[in-house]
Amino acid sequence: MDLNADLGESFGTWTMGDDAAMFPLVTSASVACGLHAGDPVTMLDTCRAAYELDVRVGAHLGYPDLAGFGLRDMDITFDDLFGAVLYQLGALDGVAHAVGASVDYIKLHGALYDRTVRDAEQASAVVAAIQAYDPGLPVLGFPGSALLGIARDAGHPVFAEAFADRAYLPDGTLVPRSQDGAQLHDIGRIAERAVRLATKGEVEAVDGTVLRIEPDSLCIHGDTPGSLATATAIRAALESAGVELESFA
Amino acid sequence: MDLNADLGESFGTWTMGDDAAMFPLVTSASVACGLHAGDPVTMLDTCRAAYELDVRVGAHLGYPDLAGFGLRDMDITFDDLFGAVLYQLGALDGVAHAVGASVDYIKLHGALYDRTVRDAEQASAVVAAIQAYDPGLPVLGFPGSALLGIARDAGHPVFAEAFADRAYLPDGTLVPRSQDGAQLHDIGRIAERAVRLATKGEVEAVDGTVLRIEPDSLCIHGDTPGSLATATAIRAALESAGVELESFA
Amino acid sequence: MDLNADLGESFGTWTMGDDAAMFPLVTSASVACGLHAGDPVTMLDTCRAAYELDVRVGAHLGYPDLAGFGLRDMDITFDDLFGAVLYQLGALDGVAHAVGASVDYIKLHGALYDRTVRDAEQASAVVAAIQAYDPGLPVLGFPGSALLGIARDAGHPVFAEAFADRAYLPDGTLVPRSQDGAQLHDIGRIAERAVRLATKGEVEAVDGTVLRIEPDSLCIHGDTPGSLATATAIRAALESAGVELESFA
Amino acid sequence: MDLNADLGESFGTWTMGDDAAMFPLVTSASVACGLHAGDPVTMLDTCRAAYELDVRVGAHLGYPDLAGFGLRDMDITFDDLFGAVLYQLGALDGVAHAVGASVDYIKLHGALYDRTVRDAEQASAVVAAIQAYDPGLPVLGFPGSALLGIARDAGHPVFAEAFADRAYLPDGTLVPRSQDGAQLHDIGRIAERAVRLATKGEVEAVDGTVLRIEPDSLCIHGDTPGSLATATAIRAALESAGVELESFA
Repeated sequence: MDLNADLGESFGTWTMGDDAAMFPLVTSASVACGLHAGDPVTMLDTCRAAYELDVRVGAHLGYPDLAGFGLRDMDITFDDLFGAVLYQLGALDGVAHAVGASVDYIKLHGALYDRTVRDAEQASAVVAAIQAYDPGLPVLGFPGSALLGIARDAGHPVFAEAFADRAYLPDGTLVPRSQDGAQLHDIGRIAERAVRLATKGEVEAVDGTVLRIEPDSLCIHGDTPGSLATATAIRAALESAGVELESFA
Repeated sequence: MDLNADLGESFGTWTMGDDAAMFPLVTSASVACGLHAGDPVTMLDTCRAAYELDVRVGAHLGYPDLAGFGLRDMDITFDDLFGAVLYQLGALDGVAHAVGASVDYIKLHGALYDRTVRDAEQASAVVAAIQAYDPGLPVLGFPGSALLGIARDAGHPVFAEAFADRAYLPDGTLVPRSQDGAQLHDIGRIAERAVRLATKGEVEAVDGTVLRIEPDSLCIHGDTPGSLATATAIRAALESAGVELESFA
Repeated sequence: MDLNADLGESFGTWTMGDDAAMFPLVTSASVACGLHAGDPVTMLDTCRAAYELDVRVGAHLGYPDLAGFGLRDMDITFDDLFGAVLYQLGALDGVAHAVGASVDYIKLHGALYDRTVRDAEQASAVVAAIQAYDPGLPVLGFPGSALLGIARDAGHPVFAEAFADRAYLPDGTLVPRSQDGAQLHDIGRIAERAVRLATKGEVEAVDGTVLRIEPDSLCIHGDTPGSLATATAIRAALESAGVELESFA
Repeated sequence: MDLNADLGESFGTWTMGDDAAMFPLVTSASVACGLHAGDPVTMLDTCRAAYELDVRVGAHLGYPDLAGFGLRDMDITFDDLFGAVLYQLGALDGVAHAVGASVDYIKLHGALYDRTVRDAEQASAVVAAIQAYDPGLPVLGFPGSALLGIARDAGHPVFAEAFADRAYLPDGTLVPRSQDGAQLHDIGRIAERAVRLATKGEVEAVDGTVLRIEPDSLCIHGDTPGSLATATAIRAALESAGVELESFA
């Protein structure tokens, strides 16, 4: 089982999250590439830390929207998105290369992640770009999403992630963040869900339905003190349960 | 002899120059990488055109200053410049790769070009970055500059460019743009100087001194109607003189 | 009757349109405020030209998206849009004030213009901001739009514009740009439509329906050679028809 | 005596400093205007807090360099700086106006602050802009700086600030940050220096020379836990010493 987190989300003088605390917990780091967060020095530092700790580096690709941190849904054209993906992939790969690392997979960020769950047009632009860049590049995403389907059809290895701290609907989608109960807060319960996801491949939806997800990776967070504690607990619980942690990439 | 021009300097909806008219004239295209000009789609289009016309692609590296088009001298730190160079190199290479091209050389832009003629600190940051990226990457620059010296010492192939349409001082530097006569306008005279530079490796300074430059490339421009006519005349004069045109890279 | 155009859309080194040619044609200039286009020097130059030619200055408010020129629909929050409108209004007013001018009205740009035709949430954010800025600020917009309705209800003077060079549907909306025939090209016919709009307040829809619009302003363009010729013809036709041209603001 | 701090330096999702803790300590808040830090919502929130706590609002004007936080010296032209100052002033005033506040003074930020201590050209551009905006606008700056001299000559009320936590050279300038001992860390000693500056108008330089500064304001910081404790101690020591705290503006 892989543990992935979004790292390298600082920008210039502004820092975000506690990457130093998160790195020992993860096996894959999705690194911002400068269009929604990240800057060249942050990218360098993040790739160097990943390389030294044997953590895989993913390109965390977002909309070109620093002011909105890539969280605003955007009607970007196919060509602009195709170009933005190549630009981010290349920039991170260039930086990673300088410290001995490389881009091992891609994951989408924020509004682009959410949009490509169902929007085949934008998902196709992303897949066309990564295919032009490297036809064997692994894609980490939401199970059942348009993105993973189109990437698989194009021949990319695809990997599914799950969220131990998010509530699921019976159809396998997440309870939207705007709704009460979307985010779980009980650390013990979250750690239990992580172990169940990792060992049995299943999670309980809000109505009690048991969903079979069989994730390749669990997504953890470190941008708040609470989330860092939760991430630490998830890692500890998985190790206690004898789950072998290694990147899918 | 190589003919190089700065291309791909549009940004989003804003266009600059007449790249379609310039491409048939050049053998090397220095392509903006998004920090002072250029955007992913412009970079794609420019690399595609270069690939189809068998023109070499250079990374035209500038300060991170879109609002100032990279023309404002900036006290950027070693680390920030190191990172900015890797970021731009990687981004252009990623985009170029998608259309079958690659980054064949680097050239600096605007204020960064001027600054690294003498500033060894910034020149070293640039060279450290390109060395980390690709130790064999050719560098095109101003003869006698700190940049070319440091790049050569680091083992990079270096190539010198000359400007047929700029006035030279007896010490081999250019008359600063702020001074009268810095820019030549007589197309016939410019074309003659280009031929003399290409065939004899020399140019006459403002005081009549004959400078031996032996350039590997002549820099031509296409961002104004006048410069486009001049560029066309230079190309024609070189061909008439039997100068073989091919990229150094 | 007022003639309005979008001016001051250059950005840094990049120019757009031929403002010098357009200024003598218009009575109102909608000036970009730096978030989708425009920069402080362009804003200054545009406001100075407007002041000298007795043209009214409008704040042309857009999404914060320079790379997309404000043409990409964006799910911006109420608070972010409220803030962005105040920021742009204040910035243009500050610049205008320095040359003796002032912001006389507002008009929305690109995707924000289109979105607020129907999106009451975003239209409300815009109106809340302009009301906090100046409760008497006139609003120029599309007749029947959510924006004009909400602005009128909030007590702002509202003014409707029409487009002599765009095809109308029988319901009074424009044929979307993505459809054939959206844009008229026959200069004579466009000039005739302008005169009919100005003198009779009506325009013929694509099916022959005569729409009563009674516009306060006609929107003209100057960003292409063709549009400039059309704008010139519209102005000449209106003058020949004895239409008095003055700004609504 | 006035206590001023740089506030509102967050950008989008990224926060900086603890403005909520600093606001009760200061009488003047220098608010970033979006070009080196700050965004419309942060500006709104900061102006609202200032208004509610009866703290004066200053426009904290910086170079257009978000990626460098305005800390990189930049060869910006007179016209570009003139425009950038007007733009920032207007934007902050527009936002402030919406919450009942207004721009009560200006202070320069980072590299622009440092440069205009001696650079008369850039200082003149700033003064020309604020004069065009409001000829009576107070200016807070470093005593003896080109900026304050030029602003005073232009008729602006000028006010001098001092730094209780910075070491002074015998000529009244600060020990550069790059040198050892530039920054004092002993909170008790810093508080004593603040009281001496406030009550006697003097501070001891590194060689023991007693400098007469007679500041109108002391600059305090809150962007690190240590600086916040120091700021709190300064405020408490001034109150214990019976210093009346109120803004100069």
